Amino acid sequence: MRTLKLTLAYDGSGYAGWQRQENALAIQQVVEEAFAHFTGGKAPTISGAGRTDAGVHALGQVASVNVEFDHSASAVMRALNVRLPDAIRAVGAVDAPTGFHARFNATGKSYRYRIQRTPVMSPFERLYGWHVPWSLDLDAMRAAAAALVGRHDFASFQASGTKITETTRTLERLEIQESGSELLIHAEGDGFLRQMVRIIAGTLVDVGSGQRDAASMPGVLAARNREAAGKTAPAHGLTLVAVRY
Amino acid sequence: MRTLKLTLAYDGSGYAGWQRQENALAIQQVVEEAFAHFTGGKAPTISGAGRTDAGVHALGQVASVNVEFDHSASAVMRALNVRLPDAIRAVGAVDAPTGFHARFNATGKSYRYRIQRTPVMSPFERLYGWHVPWSLDLDAMRAAAAALVGRHDFASFQASGTKITETTRTLERLEIQESGSELLIHAEGDGFLRQMVRIIAGTLVDVGSGQRDAASMPGVLAARNREAAGKTAPAHGLTLVAVRY
Repeated sequence: MRTLKLTLAYDGSGYAGWQRQENALAIQQVVEEAFAHFTGGKAPTISGAGRTDAGVHALGQVASVNVEFDHSASAVMRALNVRLPDAIRAVGAVDAPTGFHARFNATGKSYRYRIQRTPVMSPFERLYGWHVPWSLDLDAMRAAAAALVGRHDFASFQASGTKITETTRTLERLEIQESGSELLIHAEGDGFLRQMVRIIAGTLVDVGSGQRDAASMPGVLAARNREAAGKTAPAHGLTLVAVRY
Repeated sequence: MRTLKLTLAYDGSGYAGWQRQENALAIQQVVEEAFAHFTGGKAPTISGAGRTDAGVHALGQVASVNVEFDHSASAVMRALNVRLPDAIRAVGAVDAPTGFHARFNATGKSYRYRIQRTPVMSPFERLYGWHVPWSLDLDAMRAAAAALVGRHDFASFQASGTKITETTRTLERLEIQESGSELLIHAEGDGFLRQMVRIIAGTLVDVGSGQRDAASMPGVLAARNREAAGKTAPAHGLTLVAVRY
């Protein structure tokens, strides 16, 4: 057996997220079916590092797959790109240690959340950023972000209904960058709960809008209750940038 | 009567171009139907400055419309943006001199053609740039571009089958800008023939690829024959940037 590590970029707009589903087309399924070309027509299981939600994008999703064939990793990458729709691209493929697993072996991930602040939303950004045309207090947002960095129980920042109970994570970086009319929230950590970055982004925008105080963050964390945090920012503003091993 | 001047930005990906058509959805029709809200349900004729082809985008298409109502231009703009799909935005609206016509009164236009040079095409650029991953001789492309600037008969750079016979135009600017992995061709002039920017872009890429010589441009112009010029670059790389009055 041989294990390949694939790096994938995708525009998540038209898909039901990464994870294979019964009644909707997921990116995992599309990649597995494109891969079936190498495996005698039978689609293998391809494991992704992160289960990006519907509408969430990726620049550096990582996926692993166990194979028996001898094609070089680079030949696999080229052939995948011929078969994949152009909204999904293999941007890297290498041989990994046998048994490497994209999700279980990941030691960290980085995400980017984009906010567009122009009065009228650009048609070219509509699928890639959250339109927040009102004024935001960036200093307050940065103070709130700083309070979230570190090792905390992020239960308040997990989608409600999720069964995960071990909710302590280390958020290593949470920075707010102004770039023209765009606001970029960079989040990096050892792991993220379901919708964690989107709930953080929504909560930071609540703070920037004056709807909640930056100083309330320790209390929000301590509550361990989804209702203590702010709104969930829209999926289409989020991009999985890279996975760390 | 009163005349409004609208500035429109649109992602042309899903549309059959600007101009209203029988069997396909054009941007003109979508804007006219959104406008019908102000005109008793009957869609007015809205004239665009440039008839962008299917897949071509706009940052600053200009359109004119004659109206009888009293709503302020800014109220019209806001209401249009509520009714238009988010791929089409009104980014400006002002009162113009009565009888102003977006196309007949235009004195110039500027376009941008985007070329993406990354080995693997980004899923996020696939609808907005032409993927040219092979190596290009930019010096040769710039020499060819310089030979096209000025007042010339551009008949060789007009889509075949076009009935326009007065084909002399002044190309005021044709610049090639490198920006990261992207190549931007900026074209500005007093008027453009059908597909002229796309044929120029395709011809410049032929020159950059070594398939034709930069020194051949005067001969291509002199031929007054579409077959003398290079290929037509794909529509989706082109954006109408601004219209001058």
